[in-house]
Amino acid sequence: MSKKTNRLEDFREKRSEMNDKIMDLDHLGVKRFFNLDSNTYRDGALTGETKELLGLVASAVLRCNDCIDYHLEQCAKAGFTKDELVDAMNVAMIVGGSIVIPHMRHAVETMEFLEVEGLLTVEKE
Amino acid sequence: MSKKTNRLEDFREKRSEMNDKIMDLDHLGVKRFFNLDSNTYRDGALTGETKELLGLVASAVLRCNDCIDYHLEQCAKAGFTKDELVDAMNVAMIVGGSIVIPHMRHAVETMEFLEVEGLLTVEKE
Amino acid sequence: MSKKTNRLEDFREKRSEMNDKIMDLDHLGVKRFFNLDSNTYRDGALTGETKELLGLVASAVLRCNDCIDYHLEQCAKAGFTKDELVDAMNVAMIVGGSIVIPHMRHAVETMEFLEVEGLLTVEKE
Amino acid sequence: MSKKTNRLEDFREKRSEMNDKIMDLDHLGVKRFFNLDSNTYRDGALTGETKELLGLVASAVLRCNDCIDYHLEQCAKAGFTKDELVDAMNVAMIVGGSIVIPHMRHAVETMEFLEVEGLLTVEKE
Amino acid sequence: MSKKTNRLEDFREKRSEMNDKIMDLDHLGVKRFFNLDSNTYRDGALTGETKELLGLVASAVLRCNDCIDYHLEQCAKAGFTKDELVDAMNVAMIVGGSIVIPHMRHAVETMEFLEVEGLLTVEKE
Amino acid sequence: MSKKTNRLEDFREKRSEMNDKIMDLDHLGVKRFFNLDSNTYRDGALTGETKELLGLVASAVLRCNDCIDYHLEQCAKAGFTKDELVDAMNVAMIVGGSIVIPHMRHAVETMEFLEVEGLLTVEKE
Repeated sequence: MSKKTNRLEDFREKRSEMNDKIMDLDHLGVKRFFNLDSNTYRDGALTGETKELLGLVASAVLRCNDCIDYHLEQCAKAGFTKDELVDAMNVAMIVGGSIVIPHMRHAVETMEFLEVEGLLTVEKE
Repeated sequence: MSKKTNRLEDFREKRSEMNDKIMDLDHLGVKRFFNLDSNTYRDGALTGETKELLGLVASAVLRCNDCIDYHLEQCAKAGFTKDELVDAMNVAMIVGGSIVIPHMRHAVETMEFLEVEGLLTVEKE
Repeated sequence: MSKKTNRLEDFREKRSEMNDKIMDLDHLGVKRFFNLDSNTYRDGALTGETKELLGLVASAVLRCNDCIDYHLEQCAKAGFTKDELVDAMNVAMIVGGSIVIPHMRHAVETMEFLEVEGLLTVEKE
Repeated sequence: MSKKTNRLEDFREKRSEMNDKIMDLDHLGVKRFFNLDSNTYRDGALTGETKELLGLVASAVLRCNDCIDYHLEQCAKAGFTKDELVDAMNVAMIVGGSIVIPHMRHAVETMEFLEVEGLLTVEKE
Repeated sequence: MSKKTNRLEDFREKRSEMNDKIMDLDHLGVKRFFNLDSNTYRDGALTGETKELLGLVASAVLRCNDCIDYHLEQCAKAGFTKDELVDAMNVAMIVGGSIVIPHMRHAVETMEFLEVEGLLTVEKE
Repeated sequence: MSKKTNRLEDFREKRSEMNDKIMDLDHLGVKRFFNLDSNTYRDGALTGETKELLGLVASAVLRCNDCIDYHLEQCAKAGFTKDELVDAMNVAMIVGGSIVIPHMRHAVETMEFLEVEGLLTVEKE
């Protein structure tokens, strides 16, 4: 599995390309929501790290693979280990039920890509 | 607003009464799921406290007031402040959209009840 | 608990009154959908009884208490026992997750009303 | 049915009271989202009127009675007739299925309240 | 990007092929619902054009890319400009939250295909 | 269409591979939920066969193609005919609305694969 050929890399490129096109639409409301969305995960009463984990679980119970992939990467970069992300995904699976299982399968594959890329470690050192 | 007459107190009593009746159904699968659900929020790779917060956000984006009330109380007991719970609910509102706003209104009222009961403080001391 | 004062009886009256008002709107598309909806639960490749049970589980995972109440009554009239309806609701809870639990509580109360009314028996005789 | 005692009037008061409390939380992200939400329904490439109708249908397929009530009133004030709102709700019911029917019943009652208040007329004059 | 090789063209062919197979199932209820669905978007109290826009927003908040693609094309054929469709999608994104963003990305790409095909113009002439 | 090259076969292989990886995560809660999920479809007050059909309809209204594929195969193995599965999918489509239609198209294709494999017959012999 090369870094370049996995679906996570494809997702990042496509996501970035299409977000640029959305900005080019020059719709003020759309732009403001994108800006507000980014700011949501900055430090506040809760740390940005904790809020990334909340974003992951929200994405998982709402069953959006693209959102799961995005937040898994953000969580990995924020320092969460694979064990912690699996524990968070388990909360999503219990709250959301077996309909979340296909997204658990997707998330486990994404976490493998993140491990290969060196962005995610299994346990706290 | 007396402690006894608020809707949160009614919810707790009804919830407890009906959960007992569900156990009395004596359905093995149902009992095992209830048990598994409780265990989900125990310490694991993530702390039980963090997982209560994940449960709150999952409940909010899935728009279930009873689940929001239950997790708000668990989060308050776990030591989260009102400022932190509002910050978590904000993540849910951004991920889930304006359709979550009526549940934000509900949550703010529930947090008031929890403050009156002394279970929730606004800021870290 | 008198037959007349339970919330199930209130639901039936309100549902019937409002459905009449919907028919009075005289919107052809609305009328045709209501008609099609009723016909869905008639005998076909599957029996009408089986399809009522499918309607119950669909209502439960989509988390609509009014729909759950309606289909629980139809299922009871179709001859399903309480044990069978609990087993069906358990499938809904496993597929839909803990977010379905408040609706399980609601359904258990509705089944109690149906038992008091003599419409539902616990086990096959 | 007096103007003051219907559930729509109760909803308006509660909604206004709780929105004020949400503003009092003084959470910048929450405030910005509320502001952005209001601005969404202003004239843009589409008229504000058309966007209120879009908000109604979005609320109906997502099955939120509070949101339906709010948008029905905004649509009535924007000049849509009852016949037009029923036609919009019919689109929501076909897209969202019979699970939307309880919300159709709710909407029909709300439209009655709006008629009594003189905010909604049945047909274009 | 040739007309024939984009994913929108593939979607149209597959959709048409599978809809034919669904008709071949010869299930009366299924056939009647497909017929009722088509008729929903004909002129009524609201114009067919307006109802296509309602169908688009309903599809977007329910997060179904196939439905979004279908309604974007119908809306383009009904005369809506790209600016208007973006304004409608923005309502869906605000109501449905950031979980709708991946579908906004999908919709923007679909609108590009429709522009290339000459079915969609950016602004009113 | 060869048995090996259809998307259903790909799905089975990927599903099996990823489920193994999920077990390898060695998360007790995840393992217990997977076990509980499997046991849900065993004979109880309802037969396992009936519960597979309930699982299919739950998957369809929640709009998960992977879950639909899994339950269609289980239902076929349990002895349901294509006519019966179409009748069940029709209930899902009426309850869930036109947003379920893309999943009806998917299910019809999956049933074709199951027919080619000899797992599904059209009518009761």
